[in-house]
Amino acid sequence: MSVTRLKTISETRSCIAAARERGLTVGLVPTMGALHEGHGALVRKAREENGYVVVSIFVNPIQFDRPEDLEKYPRDLDSDIAHCERLGADAVFAPDTAEMYPTQLLTSVAVAGISTRLEGEFRPGHFRGVATVVAKLFNIVPADRAYFGEKDAQQLAVIQKMVADLDCPVSIVPVATVREPDGLAMSSRNRRLTPEQRRIAPLLYQALCEAERLIQTGSSSAAEIKEIAIKVLTQNPAIRIEYLEVVDPATFQAVNTFSRGVVVAAAVWLGQVRLIDNVKV
Amino acid sequence: MSVTRLKTISETRSCIAAARERGLTVGLVPTMGALHEGHGALVRKAREENGYVVVSIFVNPIQFDRPEDLEKYPRDLDSDIAHCERLGADAVFAPDTAEMYPTQLLTSVAVAGISTRLEGEFRPGHFRGVATVVAKLFNIVPADRAYFGEKDAQQLAVIQKMVADLDCPVSIVPVATVREPDGLAMSSRNRRLTPEQRRIAPLLYQALCEAERLIQTGSSSAAEIKEIAIKVLTQNPAIRIEYLEVVDPATFQAVNTFSRGVVVAAAVWLGQVRLIDNVKV
Repeated sequence: MSVTRLKTISETRSCIAAARERGLTVGLVPTMGALHEGHGALVRKAREENGYVVVSIFVNPIQFDRPEDLEKYPRDLDSDIAHCERLGADAVFAPDTAEMYPTQLLTSVAVAGISTRLEGEFRPGHFRGVATVVAKLFNIVPADRAYFGEKDAQQLAVIQKMVADLDCPVSIVPVATVREPDGLAMSSRNRRLTPEQRRIAPLLYQALCEAERLIQTGSSSAAEIKEIAIKVLTQNPAIRIEYLEVVDPATFQAVNTFSRGVVVAAAVWLGQVRLIDNVKV
Repeated sequence: MSVTRLKTISETRSCIAAARERGLTVGLVPTMGALHEGHGALVRKAREENGYVVVSIFVNPIQFDRPEDLEKYPRDLDSDIAHCERLGADAVFAPDTAEMYPTQLLTSVAVAGISTRLEGEFRPGHFRGVATVVAKLFNIVPADRAYFGEKDAQQLAVIQKMVADLDCPVSIVPVATVREPDGLAMSSRNRRLTPEQRRIAPLLYQALCEAERLIQTGSSSAAEIKEIAIKVLTQNPAIRIEYLEVVDPATFQAVNTFSRGVVVAAAVWLGQVRLIDNVKV
């Protein structure tokens, strides 16, 4: 059976309404396309848990803080749709920018605090753009469940807080990060790495694993953990560290000492490519 | 038949779901209580157009820019519920503050531009508080239609832009301002006027009517219209004008000269009571 291709908001609403009339629950997987095995895990989880699965594919301009990043973002809709079909999705909602932003957008959804830290500090306005488009998607595709990867842990925290604060009628389902055999987290940005950069890239996850080991063997000092993890990254001079922090998983506020669960999150540059990753301990 | 009293979000969702299962359309009338004939017109319109009518009653703390205004805001839930029952509403959703804001609210919905003008200039943060709570209410009470009074014309414009920008799946229905026989727009704040202030208060609408007459007889100069309308208001020294402007009905930006429809909007103080009104020409 082939996947239904949806371009407009109104046909998407009719399609979801028809699925609901048939008594099906609805799962939504919001993506920006360039689908990889990380997205595959989201769609498979959605497929397990819902009668009807919609993958949205929209490269959302308002969440890009740097125009060149938006421009370079990989786009291959036909291949993405074929991928969704193989994964067993029922529909792909792939609107163009004029469908999503037909007039000057004046409304924004912002999540204070958490949005200004780590990623938010280095990508001003990014999480406002994310929260705004996700709020729109939840209104366009009224889903029972929506699936987000833990690789973007801070994005997940922003969306969970938005859903709680605005009473969005949807359950957010986090899905574990999918990794290459050498540990590199799946990301559409990986394909922009040179072979040499690709060889170096797994150091990011290795540094986070080192931090995880330290915490599991009893360290509760963020300074100590950061020092050791940064030492792993600085092994290779091609890596430029943007941040590496031990943070509270709900607020993404940096912690100094801790006893309960934390997230160790990092962003690094390899040439022109920015990679992020995190571990929850 | 008696009106259903709803206090929690979860019982409200079940109640709306049950109405939908019965094939009924849902109309929502968001209010802050202290119901008067202006609200009556909203509920009656909702009653005409929907199978199931919910009135929400919630004095929303985050839209008050001045704590004393929040404190003085009239509250009489039993009388409001009796009023809703007489009007034929099916349910009243009257949550307490802890139900609406159980944890620290970090998320906000803002509508740029329009929110900073007139009311927004004099009541900083007001429209962000309004847009945020209305976004929540739309998520809690999934309605086909929601009813807002034209007396709060700028609020109506903010919400219409929010609904368009965020694709909220609800139709906004504007309802004409209801007036006392002497022209004073119905408002819960009117009951705080002294008898002497109440006698003076209709000058606000008279000034706006004077502006309307001028426009209808061919004036297209905002300066001229403002001058004449302000002259009506300054007849009585007890009136302090906060603003009186000729604005674009969608953006609430002041216009200098115009050919098509405009709104003339004003806010005045009578002692400690702030009154607003507007005419669409």
